[in-house]
Amino acid sequence: MGAGRASSRCVRRPPRPLHTINRDGEAIIRKTIAKKTFPLAKVYGLLEPGPVVLLTTTRAGRDDVMAMSWHTMLEFEPPQIGCVVSNRNHSFTNLLATRECAINIPTAELAAKVVACGNTSGAKLDKFSAFGLTPRPASRIDAPLIAECYASLECVLVDTRMVSRYCFFVLEVVKAWVDTAIKDPRTLHHRGRGAFMLAGRTIKLRSRMK
Amino acid sequence: MGAGRASSRCVRRPPRPLHTINRDGEAIIRKTIAKKTFPLAKVYGLLEPGPVVLLTTTRAGRDDVMAMSWHTMLEFEPPQIGCVVSNRNHSFTNLLATRECAINIPTAELAAKVVACGNTSGAKLDKFSAFGLTPRPASRIDAPLIAECYASLECVLVDTRMVSRYCFFVLEVVKAWVDTAIKDPRTLHHRGRGAFMLAGRTIKLRSRMK
Repeated sequence: MGAGRASSRCVRRPPRPLHTINRDGEAIIRKTIAKKTFPLAKVYGLLEPGPVVLLTTTRAGRDDVMAMSWHTMLEFEPPQIGCVVSNRNHSFTNLLATRECAINIPTAELAAKVVACGNTSGAKLDKFSAFGLTPRPASRIDAPLIAECYASLECVLVDTRMVSRYCFFVLEVVKAWVDTAIKDPRTLHHRGRGAFMLAGRTIKLRSRMK
Repeated sequence: MGAGRASSRCVRRPPRPLHTINRDGEAIIRKTIAKKTFPLAKVYGLLEPGPVVLLTTTRAGRDDVMAMSWHTMLEFEPPQIGCVVSNRNHSFTNLLATRECAINIPTAELAAKVVACGNTSGAKLDKFSAFGLTPRPASRIDAPLIAECYASLECVLVDTRMVSRYCFFVLEVVKAWVDTAIKDPRTLHHRGRGAFMLAGRTIKLRSRMK
């Protein structure tokens, strides 16, 4: 096999970088990830692996964002998600009052921002501006999507019966946006006290499971 | 720095292998992972990252096991877990009848067995013997623990109010077992239709989050 020139069959287009490096060597996160609309029936595949997500709400003209790891799929289609939002979080009040939120899925490049969101309260701070997250309008809800996240799910609150006992909210995804060019997203998976497992490679096995 | 002999400070004990290789080059999974009792207050760190788990039940002398990805933490301590077990699963009936189960966390070496469990029904098959999984007695419940899994959580069913609407069971962990020698478990994370993300490396960030 000649080494001088790769066969065109072997050329693999490199994945689009999520950031560029400026002259000072700092990573500048690409502001606009090219998210496209995504089939609702496939949404479960985004949340099943258990990534940390950024939950966004808005109320009285103020956007808020919190980091969240306690979530699960409840139904394939329409996709339903159960999640725990503590009543000590500013987002708890927003979610109950507005009955909508967006679930945004960050990747490793955003790790520091995710932790910063988790370390602070939206009651006192505009986290979007403090941590350089870009709110983008959603299509079906008022809560903003986060431009820097590779996937965003527009959700409405459909069941609050488990809120008083478990702070457990049942959400239904009404619109999904994903940058499908990112095939193996390096999602963050919280292991407690600031330890995050980074998503590794994906293997494919013969499964009859959905 | 001398290359001939590593300084004792630099010697890192290699992780204990989860399998050995026999003369035919086949991987033989180490049958008995040295699980030790594990603090209940730390259990959330095992499930937050969203691993596929193997849920075990037993009824009328027959053990059963199913693969499950739809689970979330609900409370730190005592650790409470919410999970979806479809009423099409044999485990659904077992769990409702016996009100207990174990949640076992497999690693990459067990990927083929996890998929085999997901592809079959315990109504017709003894999956433990069919797929070479070893049941071990638990301490607080009758459902078996899986010897080959690096962590096992003994659980009792504490709330069934969401079962009829969402097949959502609330479990409380009453005893936890973990092989703490496995620092960065290569857990499996389902991405849909047999695609599994393998846990990558862990990073540590300054977080005030639990």
